[in-house]
Amino acid sequence: MLLIGEFYKLAFFTKIHSMRQRLTVEAYTAGILSGDRIILSRAITLTESRLKNDRALAKKVLENILPFTGKSLRIGISGVPGVGKSTFIEAFGRHVTGLGMKIAVLSIDPSSKKSGGSILADKTRMENLAHDPLAYIRPSAAGPSLGGVAKNTRETILLCEAAGYEVIIIETVGVGQSETLVRGMSDFFLLLMLAGAGDELQGIKKGIMEMADAVAINKADGMNQVLAEQAVGEYRNALHLFPKPESGVDTQVLTCSALEGTGIAALWELIRKYQETTLQNGYFDQNRRNQNLEWMHDHIRQTLEEQFYENSILKKAVKTTEKSVSEGRELPVAAAERLLEFFFKNRI
Amino acid sequence: MLLIGEFYKLAFFTKIHSMRQRLTVEAYTAGILSGDRIILSRAITLTESRLKNDRALAKKVLENILPFTGKSLRIGISGVPGVGKSTFIEAFGRHVTGLGMKIAVLSIDPSSKKSGGSILADKTRMENLAHDPLAYIRPSAAGPSLGGVAKNTRETILLCEAAGYEVIIIETVGVGQSETLVRGMSDFFLLLMLAGAGDELQGIKKGIMEMADAVAINKADGMNQVLAEQAVGEYRNALHLFPKPESGVDTQVLTCSALEGTGIAALWELIRKYQETTLQNGYFDQNRRNQNLEWMHDHIRQTLEEQFYENSILKKAVKTTEKSVSEGRELPVAAAERLLEFFFKNRI
Repeated sequence: MLLIGEFYKLAFFTKIHSMRQRLTVEAYTAGILSGDRIILSRAITLTESRLKNDRALAKKVLENILPFTGKSLRIGISGVPGVGKSTFIEAFGRHVTGLGMKIAVLSIDPSSKKSGGSILADKTRMENLAHDPLAYIRPSAAGPSLGGVAKNTRETILLCEAAGYEVIIIETVGVGQSETLVRGMSDFFLLLMLAGAGDELQGIKKGIMEMADAVAINKADGMNQVLAEQAVGEYRNALHLFPKPESGVDTQVLTCSALEGTGIAALWELIRKYQETTLQNGYFDQNRRNQNLEWMHDHIRQTLEEQFYENSILKKAVKTTEKSVSEGRELPVAAAERLLEFFFKNRI
Repeated sequence: MLLIGEFYKLAFFTKIHSMRQRLTVEAYTAGILSGDRIILSRAITLTESRLKNDRALAKKVLENILPFTGKSLRIGISGVPGVGKSTFIEAFGRHVTGLGMKIAVLSIDPSSKKSGGSILADKTRMENLAHDPLAYIRPSAAGPSLGGVAKNTRETILLCEAAGYEVIIIETVGVGQSETLVRGMSDFFLLLMLAGAGDELQGIKKGIMEMADAVAINKADGMNQVLAEQAVGEYRNALHLFPKPESGVDTQVLTCSALEGTGIAALWELIRKYQETTLQNGYFDQNRRNQNLEWMHDHIRQTLEEQFYENSILKKAVKTTEKSVSEGRELPVAAAERLLEFFFKNRI
């Protein structure tokens, strides 16, 4: 493996300086494997492109780096705006780089499919971490749909791993389906909460808390500390009502203060312990294997649906049909079959 | 509407006695609208058939009865084996028929796709209710997949409504995805639980409790009563940690004893109150409209996936690919695209 890496590095140094827009497969590969952040960023941009040539190129790059992926610890983090996620990730990230490890911070932003940009992963949010040579912060992936964003993020994880990042944070906000996506690409899922904010205000969606491997009550500082400890008790009681996680490790609840830096080291230890236990009981690898399969089947499903729903002739018919179906004037199944028949006749 | 009903009744009485296996569209329609239980059962069997002719016939029957559907109150009920679901539904059903209303009991059994039959909806489980002239019990729908079972159950709901059933119970067991399906076709979702059984033992799946419009602690009788009251408190606290339901009505927790018949009337009142409130705030109709749309889109998605995964040439390739993908030897997206290309080239 190292020899291959060396080969790519050589190819990289001889070719990179004559390139502008797109590099060669070899140059991307070598750049990534040598940990070059600029090449890494350009490769991520390449995988996000919808142009046919770019996609073919990206596919080759991904195939090349595949043997060098999978070695990181992937940590999903969610929490609603106001929970102090940026400050937390900065403190957590600095702790990890302080231990000499490389960390990458990615994000899935449910709003990015609309804006094309991101409100979430602005580097200015985490200025200290952004300037840390061991940290790499990538703004939220863009995509035509949340599914597209997920696909891009999954590929970005692989690219970062090939570039030597040992811890990957995938963050999202506590609204919509994005948590399920993040959970589906993480080894460990952390939910950030606030004490005494009233969960309705916190806007946590149904089922999210049950996905968590750990719940951290953030901002447990000053006057808040007592409330935070109370919240820990409440969440522990509530979690007790749920079934034991598949990982075999009970969901942990703890407090932390990103501002004061308390609880961060304990949380890191907890995550390392989780990794150790699940590596031993086989869940860690099993989960990764399942996630790979899910990824493939998700992509198949998404593509099939895209072919159907993005069909320009069908779009108008779907809209009209939705009206008659929702009003109960047409049978849902009959309507679906009428549209499907049209699709299969006209698609290919 | 009544005139149409009368017309079908006439058509029915003149034709029914000369038929054997399959009836005419008119005979099915008239039989259902006149509330004939035998014709209703035969119509349900017809909609479950996968034969092309039967499906065309069923489609016409469903289209005919469509204007007479939608008037019932659809109640989903879930709870793991041992929670006393049959006894509960019997007591609840007898209470409803005691008020002079017609009730139908359907079931979605996750195991039925395998066995082709049902362990769940055996009429012998609810013997008293089965002999009640105002009650109709239909064993679990069969189908090639859980999605197929759901499709059949949705159509059975429509047929029962056209046959004049005012309350429809859709029951399922607290395992797997069947709750989500039942929730997606109910106006009200009731979760039956036991006190002190330990939720891990009760096997409630993640996210189920949060779907409930009410949680009823069953078997609150004898020595169990104190434990049941304690459980009510615990669940209320836990539910407090979740966001307010979209319906605008807080999830209720109460005790009942199907054996002693206590709590049943209160539960019925609670459900009627829920219906009243959600009819007023618009959620009831909005929910029905959304469910219709979901039904259509589910059917589209399922059909597209069936076309792909049931493709005989593709099946073997999918299996081999799953192995290389899960082991990380092939990129999930690249693998998916290879399979999709093959599908679109060979399908049509």
